[in-house]
Order: sequence, then structure tokens, then C-alpha cells
Amino acid sequence: MDVEQFRKAGYAAIDRICDYYINLDSKPVSSSVQPGYLAPLLPKTAPEEGEDFQTIAADYESVIVPGLTHWQHPSFFAYFPTAATFEGILGDLYANAAPNPGFNWSCSPASTELEAVVMDWSAQLLGLSSVFHNAGGIGGGALQTTASDSALVAIVAARERLRALTEVPLEELLVYVTTQTHSLGLKAGRVLGLQVRALEVRAEDRYALSGTVLRQALEEDKAAGRRPFILIATVGSTSSGAVDNLPEITAVLQDHPEVWLHVDAAWAGLALCCPETREALFLDTINASVDSFCANFHKWGLVNFDASTLWVRDRKSLNEALDITPPFLRTAHGDAGTVVDYRNWHLGLGRRFRSLKFWFVLRGFGVEGFRKHIRQAITLNTTFVDLLADMEIFELVTPPSLALTVFRVVPPSHAQADLAALNALNAAFFARLAVRPDLAITQTVLNGVFCVRFAVGAARTTQAHVRAAFDVLVEEAHAAIALWEPTA
Amino acid sequence: MDVEQFRKAGYAAIDRICDYYINLDSKPVSSSVQPGYLAPLLPKTAPEEGEDFQTIAADYESVIVPGLTHWQHPSFFAYFPTAATFEGILGDLYANAAPNPGFNWSCSPASTELEAVVMDWSAQLLGLSSVFHNAGGIGGGALQTTASDSALVAIVAARERLRALTEVPLEELLVYVTTQTHSLGLKAGRVLGLQVRALEVRAEDRYALSGTVLRQALEEDKAAGRRPFILIATVGSTSSGAVDNLPEITAVLQDHPEVWLHVDAAWAGLALCCPETREALFLDTINASVDSFCANFHKWGLVNFDASTLWVRDRKSLNEALDITPPFLRTAHGDAGTVVDYRNWHLGLGRRFRSLKFWFVLRGFGVEGFRKHIRQAITLNTTFVDLLADMEIFELVTPPSLALTVFRVVPPSHAQADLAALNALNAAFFARLAVRPDLAITQTVLNGVFCVRFAVGAARTTQAHVRAAFDVLVEEAHAAIALWEPTA
Repeated sequence: MDVEQFRKAGYAAIDRICDYYINLDSKPVSSSVQPGYLAPLLPKTAPEEGEDFQTIAADYESVIVPGLTHWQHPSFFAYFPTAATFEGILGDLYANAAPNPGFNWSCSPASTELEAVVMDWSAQLLGLSSVFHNAGGIGGGALQTTASDSALVAIVAARERLRALTEVPLEELLVYVTTQTHSLGLKAGRVLGLQVRALEVRAEDRYALSGTVLRQALEEDKAAGRRPFILIATVGSTSSGAVDNLPEITAVLQDHPEVWLHVDAAWAGLALCCPETREALFLDTINASVDSFCANFHKWGLVNFDASTLWVRDRKSLNEALDITPPFLRTAHGDAGTVVDYRNWHLGLGRRFRSLKFWFVLRGFGVEGFRKHIRQAITLNTTFVDLLADMEIFELVTPPSLALTVFRVVPPSHAQADLAALNALNAAFFARLAVRPDLAITQTVLNGVFCVRFAVGAARTTQAHVRAAFDVLVEEAHAAIALWEPTA
Repeated sequence: MDVEQFRKAGYAAIDRICDYYINLDSKPVSSSVQPGYLAPLLPKTAPEEGEDFQTIAADYESVIVPGLTHWQHPSFFAYFPTAATFEGILGDLYANAAPNPGFNWSCSPASTELEAVVMDWSAQLLGLSSVFHNAGGIGGGALQTTASDSALVAIVAARERLRALTEVPLEELLVYVTTQTHSLGLKAGRVLGLQVRALEVRAEDRYALSGTVLRQALEEDKAAGRRPFILIATVGSTSSGAVDNLPEITAVLQDHPEVWLHVDAAWAGLALCCPETREALFLDTINASVDSFCANFHKWGLVNFDASTLWVRDRKSLNEALDITPPFLRTAHGDAGTVVDYRNWHLGLGRRFRSLKFWFVLRGFGVEGFRKHIRQAITLNTTFVDLLADMEIFELVTPPSLALTVFRVVPPSHAQADLAALNALNAAFFARLAVRPDLAITQTVLNGVFCVRFAVGAARTTQAHVRAAFDVLVEEAHAAIALWEPTA
């Protein structure tokens, strides 16, 4: 494809994206394709000769688009939102137009320097104190692909910080998560070959980790010769938006200073841009005491996937764990120590120029635009909670958290039904929702209770979409109840 | 930004990209900015109110572009190439327009299914046998971000395959690389907390690992109670394009079947699309015997960064090492086992829809287009080698490999100068090259010998660019020789 063919194909791509968003509201949220739908529609091998791009783009429309789940659809209430903004799309378009592998400063100075700047802008947006700013030279932040990567990086840094002080067999090391920590904790344990202990959380603590539980676990494990060296705490858990009790946790950890505290605020961390959320999300404790902090701007934060931010209090602990500099990667600036080489801030070597989309989004929306976006989702969730409260067949399983509500169906006539029976009802209710084309929603289990999650956050969701979704929930709840055979 | 503003900004972005490529040849290859150039040009914080996109795009041109290193410049001969094609740019543009986190099939069925298809297309392009195809259901392939990630994944799978058979303390485990393996091997050891042994390679073996060296190391280590469990072999090493002797290696490993053989062919693997390279790159042995194989299409393979391909002979060993399925990630299709959930093929959870750009590129170029691109770079490198051979001040340090030549300056009058003196001369020669605006080139060290690497592979490089680069090398070599004070 030559430059003029690209210009034509590029304009056409932009037009298709415009059409996509103009018509998004009228599409089904989820795809109706069945597993294995695609392979029979495509040749078994790549073509021998290149094909015309118009043919390729037409095939995109006819075979790929029908297989997409529309995460930006205004009626998408599943999992957590995945951001897509025009500013983010353009940022990645510019970055992809002249890609570089980004492993050191001289790969492309602008990539490294802009990352240092936007991480500081983002830190300030969320209210993170100057100890986490790159400009200070002691702590700092870097972009990672996802919260899983951020947690892996934190665990490696924590493990090496401990091993630099004392010889510890890897088999004795223990990663702490809670039963409500995202699966990234267990997966990191699998990847690193380390033991993971999931601390229990209680419904009466709103499924958040308390200091008491942590203290008891630390005492038990240390007495048994195990070496807990990191706790992955959560601000805004995936299942229910629970916020681990960071003030209690950090108080306990004062007696166990070798334990690194990583806070995974992948989703809820973005809400910190609004000052009114900061107390409930324990920002002061985060600033005073945590070793590392992660938020995913690609969730609720308007920056296209992937865009995970990781900040650390002490960059040395990170860089020392991850620095490898063979001859072919040496540069005059790197040797002189005058530049940041971001390869020493993440697991791999190469990295995409992701800071550009951050810069475009942060400038395009401004701090007030970010806050408006977050507040809008929280307001819409309040609407949803009010609607639930008016219908006696629904019950909140735990108090709503920001823009997330976890609830279940409990028919008032059978409020005393046993857990298994109510779980069966709610599983049937959810199964009906899962096949609806007009909304997307997901389930979870909280300490044995089957629940349905309603997460607001797509940029185009309005009151009307929330009300329409609620009507679907009512309809399917009644249908599920009518078919239900309660055992108690 | 609303849809019509996006249309306007999108067209303008496409126009800027066209201008960029129209004018690329006339730009300096590397940026002349100094460390710290950017922060003083930008505000300390994000703006309070959103800004107009035209202002943002203008700032991109005025402050970001001057800080870019142009990896797609036709006079870029450093490291290895980083691909950028119009087809790749458009593929990512479409994918980024409707992003999804891709962790399971229902996230967006098309993403998963297209990945399965393009990995099979890519496998066939490179001549990988059906044992590595997803369609077979036993082996298979998945996209990773970079070769570092691919190697990490292979090591984790290998470690768990061994640990499933026998209890082994992690401290006894040993990862084998060679002194010429990419730094990803040492870094993976750091990340996973495992010992790494770098096996020696010999100049007379063209810096490739031989069976003899491997057999001796295995016997030594096992006798000492260590447990080598994976060898990261290289087809086309970073420093010199060396190809480890896979037939000898696999013969040795027949006596050590617990050792996983991973082949990192990040750069040279792409050349396998040309049948004439397959014997020298040991394709038959790869098909018959290796456990995993990685090639980076974002290097020499026309797909925009990042685009690393990882194939495994036995997907079960991979999935069993990496599968974690909490309640909130369960789906009816996943439970039924009817779909691939790619989260169990990589380290994290979320993943970008990267298969789209593969599909666009494979279709846009076709198999013959790929071959033409690879052959063109090899031909250009042959031109370069011929030019070197005509100038008696240059010496090949090792035979050229595909599109890579490693050489140094050795003035005929001082052919017997000692190594330190010649290294000093070549370091001075390279220092002169490093500040030239009209080409980019990198250095390396091969068993103590300081050398300069010349890697061809940017899509726009022609004979004229190679000849112009050679003229610069001659000029700077003479200048360095004139200032040199040989010690012998």
C-alpha cells in the first residue's frame, strides 16, 4: 500500500469508526456468534499475493464486527468498563505510526520523557503525593500493560528487597492476598512459583481485609517459619468494590517492616481524581505508607487499553531487581546515569509508546473532564441503587461502592429460603440475563453467596440506559422466580 | 471531542502520517535532543479544562516529533528493525477503536478466534509443521508482547512441567542460556528468582552453541545436584545473528528429556518464510523437536510493535501452568471447554486485540510480499558485505547472517595490533558514528572483541541508502584511524 492508498484507507477507517459510534447504541451489546464461527469463514492460509485493502476492510465489517462484544456500548454493565475515547484512539494512532521499542532513552527520547511527565500528571490527578513523582528522583511511576503486570513487578521488587537483606529459600516466601483480591495475585504466585495465602474477609467488614485478620495471619505464618514478604491489598475489589482497611493494615505492618504493601486500585483508583472520594479510599494512608500503587486508566480512566499505571515509593528497589544491561544495550546516556531507561521498570525489554495516548487524553479532557466522567458514573449508579431499593424482590449483598452495585434476587415471600435455594434462583436469573442482547452484566460469588454485579462506567451511558437495564432485570427476575422451586 | 470533531482530527492525523512518510528520508535518523529536553516545555500538571485537539496535535508536531528516533527511517541500521506498515497501522486503528480486554472468548469472540487463525497462518508462513497449529488442538500459538514475555512464559511452563513430575526446590533449578542469548534470558532469571547459567560459545562455532558444550554442562550441573530444566537456544542472536546448532542440541537433549527446548528466533525467525533459508536455520529440527518457538513479527515481520508469536508443542503444559479461573471470570463456554481462553496462554489477564493487525498485514502483503521484503534486506546486506570486502580497513568479525553484518576496523598496517588497541580504535570509530545524524547503527562485543553491527530491514531502505551509509563508515573509520595511537 503506498502513501496515497493509505490516505484513502485511513480516511475510510476514520469514517467507519465514526459510523460505529453513531450506531453503537442500536447494536446488541454482545455478539450472538457461536464458538468456532470464524475459521470456516476464512481461508486456511494467508493468500499468496497481497490483497486490495478495500476487500480486507469490507471483510472486517462482515466477519469481525459481528463477533465483537461492544465494551463501549452504553448498556455494558459487565466486569468493569474498558475505556475508549477519541483522544485515546488518536494518541495510539500517532504512536503506532512511528513505533519504537522504547527500552532505553535513546530508542526515542520523547517516549521516555513523555512517560515521566504523564506519570507525574496522573499522580497529581489522583492526589498521589510528591514521593511518587518521577520529578523527585526517588519514587516514580511507569506504565505497565495491566494490573497483573504491575502486581508481578511489585512482587519481584519486594522479593529482591527481602533477599538483599537476608538469605531466604524461595519455598519459605509467602505472598498475601485476600479471598477478594483479583486473580492476578494467585496467578502471580503461579508465574513466580511462590506460595500464596488468601486471607479471609468478612461480610461484616464489607469483604475488606481488616488489621486483625492480617495480624493473626502474620503471627501464625512467621511462627511456622514462613516468610510473608508482600501483601496485595485492594482499593475497590473486582467482585464488590471492597476497600481493604489500609489504616489498620499499615498499623499492623509497622511491626513487620519487611512486608511490602502493594495496593491494587485498578478500577477504583481512578475515582481518586475526585476529592470527595479520597477519604473513603484512604488516600492519606496510600501517600504515607504504601510501597506501590496501581490504577488502570484503561478501565474507568478514559485511556484506551492497555494503560496500567504503577507507582513506587523507592525506584531503586524496582530498578535493582530488574536491571540487566548487556553490551548491545549500553548507551552513553545510560552509562552516565542521566536518563531513565524504562526497561528497568517492567518485566520485559521492549515497550510501546503508550504515554502519547495519556497525554492526549489528559489534555483533551482536563482534570475537570476526568472528574465529570467519574462523577457521572457514580450518579448513574445511585440511580440504579434507588431503583433497586424500590423493588422488594432485590437485595443489596453489600453496600454499593462508587459505580458498582452487587445484588441478588430474594423474593419477599421466601426471604428465609436457604442459601443453596437462593443461589439456584440467582444463577437461573443470571443465566437469563447472560443471553439478553440488550445489556451485558456479570455474576460473582461473595463468601458463598451468588450475586449479580452491575458496573457503570462506559462514557456513553445515560439515565435512560440504566433505567432500561433495570427494566430488563425486573422482567428476568420475575421470570426466574416464576420458574423457581424454593426448597425452604 | 464529538464524532464530527473526531472525523476532522482523524483525517488530519492520517494526513500527518502521510507527510511523515513522504518526508522521512530527509530527516535526521536520530533525535538531537538532550536528556531532560521535554519537561521544561510542558506544564507541571494536566490542564484543569480540556484543550482543543488542534492545539494538542500542533504540540505533538513541535515538541514530540523532534524527540523521536526514526526506527522506520531508510538509514536506520541499528539494533534490529522495528516494523511499521500502513496495513499494521490500520489494523491497530480498527482494534483500538473498540477495545476489549480479551481475557476470555466472550470478551470478544472475534479477538480470540482471529488470533487462533492468524497464528496458524503465521505458522504456515514460517514453515512450522501442523504440530504447532491451533487447529490441531494439541500444540498451538498465541500472541505475546515481546520475546521477553514469550521466554518467561516458556520458562514457567517448563518449570511446572518438571515440578509436576518431581519435587524440586526452586534453588536447584537452572535455566540455560548462552553468552550470546538475548538479555531476556538473564532477565527472566531475575524475574523468576532462578539461577541462570550462560554457556560459552566459541568464535570457531560462529558464536553458536554446540552439542559438546551443552553435554558437558549438563553432566557437570547434574553431578553437582543442579537441575537444568530449560535451554533458551537462539536462531539469529542479537549480537551477530548466530544460529545455535539445533541438530546437535536436540541430539544431546534426547538423553535429558526433562529439559525444555525454547528457541528464540525473535529476529531471524521471520526469514523462515523464504524456503531457501530453512535448512541453515534448522527448520526441520524445530519442527521435529523443540518445545516452544518465538518469532517477533514486530521486528523484521511487517507487523507493528508489539507482535511476538509464541508456539508450543503441547498447549496443556502451558495452560496448566497458567490457568486461574475465579468465579467472576467463569463463562458457560469456558466451563464447557469449547473455546480457547487466551488468558491461560500468557502472564497477565487482559490482552489487546493484536490479531487484527496480523490479519491486515498477512492479507495486504501475502506470502510473496513477505518473502520479497525479507529477500530485499538480505540482498541489501550482501551489497554491504561486498562493499566491506573491497575496503581493506574493514574486517568481518564473523560471517554475515541473513541481513546482519558484524565487522570492525583493522588497519592493514596494524593488523597485528593487540586486542585492547583495536578495541579502543573501534570504540572511537563507533563513538563517531553514534553522533552522526544521517544513520543509526549499534555496537556489540563478541567474546571480548568490540564490533559494529549493521542490520538491514527497514521497509524503505534501498541500495542508495546502504551505499551512503557505507560512505559514512569509510569517512569515520579513516578519521578514527588518523587519531588512533596503536599500542602495538
